[in-house]
Amino acid sequence: MPSKVRLFLDHPLAEGQGVPLDADQAHYLFGVMRLGPGARLSVFNGRDGEWEAEVADAGKRAGRLVAVAQTRPMAMPPDLWLLFAPIKKARTDFIVEKAAEMGCRRILPVQTEFTNSERIRADRLRAHAVEAAEQCGNVFVPEVEDLMRLPEVLASWDPSRTLWFCDETLATGAAATPDRTGAPGAVLIGPEGGFSDAERARLRALPFARSIRLGPRILRADTAAVAALTLWQGVEGDWR
Amino acid sequence: MPSKVRLFLDHPLAEGQGVPLDADQAHYLFGVMRLGPGARLSVFNGRDGEWEAEVADAGKRAGRLVAVAQTRPMAMPPDLWLLFAPIKKARTDFIVEKAAEMGCRRILPVQTEFTNSERIRADRLRAHAVEAAEQCGNVFVPEVEDLMRLPEVLASWDPSRTLWFCDETLATGAAATPDRTGAPGAVLIGPEGGFSDAERARLRALPFARSIRLGPRILRADTAAVAALTLWQGVEGDWR
Repeated sequence: MPSKVRLFLDHPLAEGQGVPLDADQAHYLFGVMRLGPGARLSVFNGRDGEWEAEVADAGKRAGRLVAVAQTRPMAMPPDLWLLFAPIKKARTDFIVEKAAEMGCRRILPVQTEFTNSERIRADRLRAHAVEAAEQCGNVFVPEVEDLMRLPEVLASWDPSRTLWFCDETLATGAAATPDRTGAPGAVLIGPEGGFSDAERARLRALPFARSIRLGPRILRADTAAVAALTLWQGVEGDWR
Repeated sequence: MPSKVRLFLDHPLAEGQGVPLDADQAHYLFGVMRLGPGARLSVFNGRDGEWEAEVADAGKRAGRLVAVAQTRPMAMPPDLWLLFAPIKKARTDFIVEKAAEMGCRRILPVQTEFTNSERIRADRLRAHAVEAAEQCGNVFVPEVEDLMRLPEVLASWDPSRTLWFCDETLATGAAATPDRTGAPGAVLIGPEGGFSDAERARLRALPFARSIRLGPRILRADTAAVAALTLWQGVEGDWR
């Protein structure tokens, strides 16, 4: 973990750029982290890389930073999305955090036939993605979409993006990892109860979908997400 | 998740075998899960596979099951260990849970130079390993050892077991995954602050150690554990 404070800000960053702080940010930097005028911290906005910034004004409910110098250039992770069926709150939070750490560009909660949770708080999940990026030193933050029904997501799918679909019913002996295609990708993780037979048949018939098998043991959804993203990064992504 | 109740019992299992229940088990089965005499459940002990059992006596503070028939034979996962530096409580629990799901046989908490937590509750971690096995349908439960200092673990290491050591300082371009050796394995995950320079130098010099690289982004320890175990299972384990 970096010892320096690291903060995501939705504001343009450039040399000498002033950045106003809202009440939450001021509370965190000056109340919780005890920074004062002249203190240095790292900031990023997901578009302009990482910057060293200096505290110019430190108030109780507001403040201002000035960007001093770029410390890391902007770098986007590979073109990878995660689609997952929301589960219990804590594990849904974990999946979003893991997707951010593993370098997903976009996170799509999808409702499947066996998904129990009908609602998600997308703003809460976005906050988790931001926090993971702050903690892990990333310069990008994945987009978190609102919940959509899986059939709708598939109906508007760009077929040039390969969908890796984790199929726990695949026979032993099936390849754990497909060959490299170089195409943009997405990983789809089903809910705790798995996919319905109809969903599985539909997924298997999609020309852009590839079944993968995550070993012979049943994995919880958050574990399966990290494992599948690892396999994708190893074959198609930037872990090669 | 299996809809049937699934319980780990530290008792021999065979056809017609009676199994006494302690107060905690009786409370869970009869109080929480509302099972009564004649109800069926799945039980396993980590040695005799999975059995269907029937409730013979259901009391408030005790009870008895009878094993009816074996439903799955005993099967051990590949010979894989996880060594990790304990971190905050909730994430340590998660690492143990993930190691159990991913098919580790043995979990060794190790104290490194930058490990903050000096104590772990091994009994608590064992309970998490059991719960993960119950939830995920496994018939084995990994052993969880007491905390040991890393140098002591390495001093008594059997050199025929390969140690995969996650080295975040490895240069880009290093192979993410080594070639298959067929040897028993272990994955070592460092603490949040990484390994010290002295530890890293020592690890690199070990003839049984192989450095692996988990991509260009910093991963939290629990994420790194699942990712490294995935890579091992794909190369050396039963995900091939």
